[in-house]
Amino acid sequence: MTDTATLAPLADAMTEDSAAVGKVLDAVMPRPEGPEAPLFEAMRYMTLANGKRLRPFLVLSGARLCGGARAGALRVGAAIELVHTYSLVHDDLPAMDDDDLRRGQPSCHVKFDEATAILAGDALQTLAFEVLADPATHPDGAVRSELVRRLAVAAGGAGMVGGQMIDLAVEHADVDLATITRMQRLKTGALISFSCEAGAVLGGAGEDKRRALLGYAHDLGLAFQIADDLLDTLGNAADLGKATGKDAAHGKATFVSLLGVEEAQRRARALVRQAVAHLDVFGESAAHLRDLARFVVERRT
Amino acid sequence: MTDTATLAPLADAMTEDSAAVGKVLDAVMPRPEGPEAPLFEAMRYMTLANGKRLRPFLVLSGARLCGGARAGALRVGAAIELVHTYSLVHDDLPAMDDDDLRRGQPSCHVKFDEATAILAGDALQTLAFEVLADPATHPDGAVRSELVRRLAVAAGGAGMVGGQMIDLAVEHADVDLATITRMQRLKTGALISFSCEAGAVLGGAGEDKRRALLGYAHDLGLAFQIADDLLDTLGNAADLGKATGKDAAHGKATFVSLLGVEEAQRRARALVRQAVAHLDVFGESAAHLRDLARFVVERRT
Repeated sequence: MTDTATLAPLADAMTEDSAAVGKVLDAVMPRPEGPEAPLFEAMRYMTLANGKRLRPFLVLSGARLCGGARAGALRVGAAIELVHTYSLVHDDLPAMDDDDLRRGQPSCHVKFDEATAILAGDALQTLAFEVLADPATHPDGAVRSELVRRLAVAAGGAGMVGGQMIDLAVEHADVDLATITRMQRLKTGALISFSCEAGAVLGGAGEDKRRALLGYAHDLGLAFQIADDLLDTLGNAADLGKATGKDAAHGKATFVSLLGVEEAQRRARALVRQAVAHLDVFGESAAHLRDLARFVVERRT
Repeated sequence: MTDTATLAPLADAMTEDSAAVGKVLDAVMPRPEGPEAPLFEAMRYMTLANGKRLRPFLVLSGARLCGGARAGALRVGAAIELVHTYSLVHDDLPAMDDDDLRRGQPSCHVKFDEATAILAGDALQTLAFEVLADPATHPDGAVRSELVRRLAVAAGGAGMVGGQMIDLAVEHADVDLATITRMQRLKTGALISFSCEAGAVLGGAGEDKRRALLGYAHDLGLAFQIADDLLDTLGNAADLGKATGKDAAHGKATFVSLLGVEEAQRRARALVRQAVAHLDVFGESAAHLRDLARFVVERRT
């Protein structure tokens, strides 16, 4: 479907956007000083490590398609990355997924300690809302509070955290595809949807563009999760910078365990085709988002 | 200074306000259903238990003095109570203060489990920002996002969470009064200050009233913490619904260990006099806030 050469423009755009978001994150994060310095060191350790920064890229791409200002989109992207990172810090805790490795480095509670990791996660979440609500994000207060409200809905009990709770609750239970699908729509899908929608909110886009981006996000989010499960089964730890085969070792139901590798791959590809179809309304200008959807199922890390 | 009879109007007002905030909390909290039900049960368990709801009372009192609408003030009070409650849930965790008892009942992680408590705390924080950003809180989006921004500053790394980190960092160290004071100004003072200021923001009050409320909050917050340390030394667990003497048992420096009981009592009373003096600008209408300051140092629970 794709090869390295055709993905080069996407990779370049993602690298550039990721660096720009990294600068915003660095600027909004407090400097470590005083007896509370470890808190800020932990926040920086988890946030400033180079990652793909997929969610901010979705915000920036949506803003480009809808006429949202780049400065504001960078801040919204940073806010979503802060929420995503806080969720990783808490998910890795011993009482949760108990992961010692994250992005090829020791997890936050391993590098620091459990208490610091809990507090760093808490403060990362708070900082996300501080960044969104600041007038630098958008001149219109109604837009800023709309962004806050939507991020809160996506990240809270009816979104990301609710999905994480389902994940824990069904860990040792027989679960069906509908439950796994709903779990993933909440756990990872809600934040991806908000990332895509935020660009439309920032640009004041009409209902057609907003719906197109949400439709794209809906399919992309699920494809992304199926691809993640496939990587957990087929990938290797050195490439991924995290442990693999963990789900199977824990007897955890995943898209792969329920569907098998081939059917999971087939569905991921079908979802990508669907995701791409939503973008027709934007014409050629949505090339990066099309490439991204393809990259998500082709990636090796 | 005060007796039960003169505090009766305050007690009545607090009871009425607490019940009204409880209704808002009940309304904004998701109903427990689906496999994620324990998350919502834990959120409700911690939030809907009857408490004094001191912080919402401060919001409502400030709004009464500054002409802020009651419906909005109830929502802001609920949001602050959600943040306060999330901090209690996380502070009680084994990796943090490891407290099994809270308000006379099993702590969240004891009643449910650690993972559920971590997630419930996370979702309570998120919900606070969702409540603030909703148009029902104030018709002006700029006011809503200002409330979000100020709550985030008060609750985050430069506020409440930073104070909690200092508390952990200095636990086994020789600390001086300046460090303890700064720690408490962040850990409990910042949220109390925002509670008082929020009423002024909601009512669009002028600089004089805002400053008066902030000055009151500043002194009240410290008096409150000294009183808390005194209760930990002098109170008993049955009255308080939580363990006492814990700080001394942990060799933890407190206002009482650094100042002694008598000097701590003297300072708390001096702070209350200072707090009350700030309220002169409001005349007789600030009677409840004056009584509250006195109650804080006289209370037995």
